[in-house]
Amino acid sequence: MDPRLETNKQTVLDFYEVGLNQKDFAAAAKLVGDRYVQHNPRIADGIEGFEAFLCQLRADFPALRAEVKRIFADGDFVIAHVHGVRVPGTPGTAIVDIFRLDDQGKIIEHWDVMQPIPETAANPNGMF
Amino acid sequence: MDPRLETNKQTVLDFYEVGLNQKDFAAAAKLVGDRYVQHNPRIADGIEGFEAFLCQLRADFPALRAEVKRIFADGDFVIAHVHGVRVPGTPGTAIVDIFRLDDQGKIIEHWDVMQPIPETAANPNGMF
Repeated sequence: MDPRLETNKQTVLDFYEVGLNQKDFAAAAKLVGDRYVQHNPRIADGIEGFEAFLCQLRADFPALRAEVKRIFADGDFVIAHVHGVRVPGTPGTAIVDIFRLDDQGKIIEHWDVMQPIPETAANPNGMF
Repeated sequence: MDPRLETNKQTVLDFYEVGLNQKDFAAAAKLVGDRYVQHNPRIADGIEGFEAFLCQLRADFPALRAEVKRIFADGDFVIAHVHGVRVPGTPGTAIVDIFRLDDQGKIIEHWDVMQPIPETAANPNGMF
């Protein structure tokens, strides 16, 4: 197996930890390449958009936690299935993030899909 | 590279085509293993739940189309980033589906996350 796949997964895990969980922009920015193409429709493009997003999180949801439930890699892409909880004790959000990394192992593009976790479900298996 | 990764991707692409697009339950069921663990909170567990879901789609959204924008595989998992359009001409839904396949290459588990595509966005890049 291409060893870059595991390295890329670890980079993305580090990005969640220092970025989303610690909300440390400077540390997260070190994992980002010379561009950061943003596809989340609520976040402005580029590393500046990510900085503004983290700043907002620190202000509005200081206790926000992102827990990576499973993580995959294929080629230049890393895909993470994540449980995001903005306010502790609430059901939170099911998220899949897709990241593209460059050949230096830096994150350069991000897509996501987010869905609030409902209180009840048609099956007993949970969203993760 | 493990040739099973490409085979599994093709199985999932076939599942979208015969299942979601053609809404042909019998053809889709041939791609499913001896169980089908469902994590979508609106769909009942098992192959019976998938059958009821397809039946509902045929009735309510006969023109529904799922377009796979990118597809990944890692181990037993296939992950697809999908544009779902229930009614032609509407913005539709951004979806990531995660499938787990058994060692016979049959689909045995499904998770997803869905988000309506907004009319406007903070960046010009689109959700795909």
